[in-house]
Amino acid sequence: MAGDRDDALVVGVDFGTLSGRAVVVRVRDGAELGTAVHEFRHGVLDRAMPDGTPLPPDWALQVPRDYVDVLRTAVPEAIKDAGADPAAVIGIGTDFTACTMIPTTTDGTPLCELPEFANNPHAYVKLWKHHAAQPQADRINQVAAARKEGWLPCYGGLISSEWEFAKGLQLLEEAPDVYAAMDHWVEAADWIVWQLTGTYVRNACTAGYKGIRQDGAYPSQDYLRELNPGFATFVRDKLDHPIGDLGDRAGTLTKLAAYWTGLPEGIAVAVGNVDAHVTAPAAQAVEPGRLVAIMGTSTCHVMNGAELREVPGMCGVVDGGIVPGLWGYEAGQSGVGDIFAWFTANQVPPEYHEAAAAAGISLHEHLTSLAARQKPGEHGLIALDWHSGNRSVLVDHELSGVVLGQTLATRPEDIYRALMEATAFGTRVIVEAFAEAGVPVTELVVAGGLVRNPLLMQIYADVTNLPLSTIRSAQGPALGSAMHAAVAAGAYDDIRAAAAAMGSVNSGVYRPIPENAAVYEKLYMEYADLHDHFGRGGNDVMHRLRALRRAAVAGR
Amino acid sequence: MAGDRDDALVVGVDFGTLSGRAVVVRVRDGAELGTAVHEFRHGVLDRAMPDGTPLPPDWALQVPRDYVDVLRTAVPEAIKDAGADPAAVIGIGTDFTACTMIPTTTDGTPLCELPEFANNPHAYVKLWKHHAAQPQADRINQVAAARKEGWLPCYGGLISSEWEFAKGLQLLEEAPDVYAAMDHWVEAADWIVWQLTGTYVRNACTAGYKGIRQDGAYPSQDYLRELNPGFATFVRDKLDHPIGDLGDRAGTLTKLAAYWTGLPEGIAVAVGNVDAHVTAPAAQAVEPGRLVAIMGTSTCHVMNGAELREVPGMCGVVDGGIVPGLWGYEAGQSGVGDIFAWFTANQVPPEYHEAAAAAGISLHEHLTSLAARQKPGEHGLIALDWHSGNRSVLVDHELSGVVLGQTLATRPEDIYRALMEATAFGTRVIVEAFAEAGVPVTELVVAGGLVRNPLLMQIYADVTNLPLSTIRSAQGPALGSAMHAAVAAGAYDDIRAAAAAMGSVNSGVYRPIPENAAVYEKLYMEYADLHDHFGRGGNDVMHRLRALRRAAVAGR
Repeated sequence: MAGDRDDALVVGVDFGTLSGRAVVVRVRDGAELGTAVHEFRHGVLDRAMPDGTPLPPDWALQVPRDYVDVLRTAVPEAIKDAGADPAAVIGIGTDFTACTMIPTTTDGTPLCELPEFANNPHAYVKLWKHHAAQPQADRINQVAAARKEGWLPCYGGLISSEWEFAKGLQLLEEAPDVYAAMDHWVEAADWIVWQLTGTYVRNACTAGYKGIRQDGAYPSQDYLRELNPGFATFVRDKLDHPIGDLGDRAGTLTKLAAYWTGLPEGIAVAVGNVDAHVTAPAAQAVEPGRLVAIMGTSTCHVMNGAELREVPGMCGVVDGGIVPGLWGYEAGQSGVGDIFAWFTANQVPPEYHEAAAAAGISLHEHLTSLAARQKPGEHGLIALDWHSGNRSVLVDHELSGVVLGQTLATRPEDIYRALMEATAFGTRVIVEAFAEAGVPVTELVVAGGLVRNPLLMQIYADVTNLPLSTIRSAQGPALGSAMHAAVAAGAYDDIRAAAAAMGSVNSGVYRPIPENAAVYEKLYMEYADLHDHFGRGGNDVMHRLRALRRAAVAGR
Repeated sequence: MAGDRDDALVVGVDFGTLSGRAVVVRVRDGAELGTAVHEFRHGVLDRAMPDGTPLPPDWALQVPRDYVDVLRTAVPEAIKDAGADPAAVIGIGTDFTACTMIPTTTDGTPLCELPEFANNPHAYVKLWKHHAAQPQADRINQVAAARKEGWLPCYGGLISSEWEFAKGLQLLEEAPDVYAAMDHWVEAADWIVWQLTGTYVRNACTAGYKGIRQDGAYPSQDYLRELNPGFATFVRDKLDHPIGDLGDRAGTLTKLAAYWTGLPEGIAVAVGNVDAHVTAPAAQAVEPGRLVAIMGTSTCHVMNGAELREVPGMCGVVDGGIVPGLWGYEAGQSGVGDIFAWFTANQVPPEYHEAAAAAGISLHEHLTSLAARQKPGEHGLIALDWHSGNRSVLVDHELSGVVLGQTLATRPEDIYRALMEATAFGTRVIVEAFAEAGVPVTELVVAGGLVRNPLLMQIYADVTNLPLSTIRSAQGPALGSAMHAAVAAGAYDDIRAAAAAMGSVNSGVYRPIPENAAVYEKLYMEYADLHDHFGRGGNDVMHRLRALRRAAVAGR
């Protein structure tokens, strides 16, 4: 094991939805020596452009310069926080939200940085939760199903509006000038590595999960032409590019990037990766049956499997998508922490803010402590956690949230708890879909920011009736990225060896409480009923409401 | 017309859910000369007793002494506000929420004022929106349907948990000691008249609508015995008492009540009445086809009809229930202003409170002005207005509220508007039920506090596609009570004559806007779908959630 020196370090940088986090990690044992966070200056643009121009519903953009600012600020601050010598750093690895897409010129310049496109929303980053390409996704799915495209079952039968093809087709159809000016349609995960190395390498993970790459090939020109004649050469002209495997070295740190980060020029830079997938080895979850749920703004579920199975409604199964040599399954929930954050920002009255402030705790902590006093079923509510659409197993971002059961006695903490429970029911739907497809889940391993909420963790254990383990690191994705940097730098032979030395997990720290599980069994049946009624065509009211909303906004 | 003197005055007192309002009115023209409001000191007890003992879900109690305080404070203040000579007052009339029930001794003392029952919740007033007698109401309906009781169709086929029999049966079964000690089970509408006159007279209106009195008779002993052997003599022992017609003189003001109110001893006191019914003549709505919606905490709909029809799901039809000589139809929505108030108290974040305060307007006004900027359909939401159950046409207080269509972009004003619209859809369900039963509605006449919200009024016109008139008086029920006082004092021959001289209405001030009505037509179809799915057995999830809630609370 180990690098050249016993005190060798690696840096992992995790790019989330609202901020980027850098962590300095010791190669030999995974000790996290220092960390720093940098908030994106523009955050998520979902109501208006930076100049105030309003955006249509379901849009979510970002500004790429905000990502570079993370390299310039969080990385040197983390080194400083660690009290480390930058010269000890032998590699850097990154992970990103996905599928987050940037249209660039041939040298990687984002089109939004060109004066002629500075005011064009389509020239900006389309964040993973940009959900305005659903009409395109619908056609992608209809045409693929009609043609019986062989890759479709690998994505649970449905391609998401969040992914590379739907967002690319929206770009072509709504902003043909931007589409024409675009040389590359780049995953942000790869764009940031491009900034570090000066080289564009597509990572195997997002190319497989989000870019419909299976067995080394993408959807055919014939298929693409049927979607739109102008889209026929999308793969050849905009998407295709050399692939790097996870843990590979994408290149070495450029002089400019060394200047930004304060790290040594020429150190190893790992191939880009995804926040969720990179976390599995950080939690030592490299065995089949361990479902890793990375719970933050959204939840991504990743699990390794020894065999290839088709699981309806999942995000995808990719050979080596998480760990080389195993089938990597991915599923997800588009809104989790996002829903709680939306609730606290929009639905909580002043006295709760004041009580939280007086107690010196966050509003989330205050609401959680109130919600924790209840027994399951006591609030009389059931909710559907579709405020950001449904990724798995329905793959439909025109779905929307529901809260049912309100009375005049319903309090904010009641709804807060019902929303927590709804996300747990959503996870159980995924667990059951895996089990039914012959990929049984035996343990839930939770990582991500929400792991710090013990009530939420207990609810997940009770609702899924599974033992729940938690990642030991508080910054799993950044640690996972650092581990991939260690592999890319040659300190370990592969990610399994790095996981054994550098990862860690608290096993089975939450166990289902039988009396709670019994009540949640009943409530889950109610959830499943509503899930199927509103999500599988029993009542398509949510789609009709979206259409009415679009018509009303368009008619303004 | 007119009393003994050209400046003769009457006083009307309206007892609402949270306060009582007195108005001093000139007999000859209905001019409102002075008014005063007194808030009930204990408000609504729906979470805990005055001593802090928690109450179960769905309870709603009041303290009768709070009602007397209105006589002692609001009446003299209104006289003072009018600058009037109390000696000019020739009568006083009252109206009350219904069905609001008080268990009393033989002299009218509320049982909660006896030391032995001071801590017993069942000895207190059960407010109209006390909804914990639903199990009793279910049995009342099952047994009546099985026996084909002749009175059942006069109540739309369903007796409400809010009414005299369901609440009385709950009292017997849950607090037999209180039931045994009770000499009279008294409508608050009659109890307050008893306080003024020293005489107990049951008014024909509540006896008919809430007390199942039809053709001078109540449900039989055989029927009552089948509900519970101990309930067989409920009518004879607890309920039956001489009836007074609306506008009749119940008695004259006692020396004690004259002392409380500052009014002359011996003046006429009108028979008790209900806030909604008393408002119809105040809005000159004494003709068939004019549906009067008294919109406040809840909405009560009253309409006169020339013929007797059976309208499924309505609250009741009573001969002379509103105006002598016509069939009085009543329907209602259990929660309207209550839902908006619950929303503003529980779901609106601090910045909205601050913006409202900075603008010097109420939170309701602030939310309304934001909601008014939207087009119909723009928020993408649909709601069910069942937070306080459903009175008409489902008559089911185990139903509960729903908000569907939320996204991460949903703002408080979006939900506020969706709740407004939901109550309008609820009114349209009632209008359609009347029409289908052969009692067509040609005009909506709105009274009550919510008439002051022009957005809400326009939404009601657009949703029902009916011209909407508004009562001219800002205090319709109190004016209506004063008009009944004038009739009781002999100043007018009947309430029709009083309505012509003292009532007033702004005709057709809101007209449907065709493009809005077209969108609401679509949204109403969605509402109707959800209404029937959750309200008529498609999915009984709301009942199951209530049962789980009760079990969880009981197991604490």
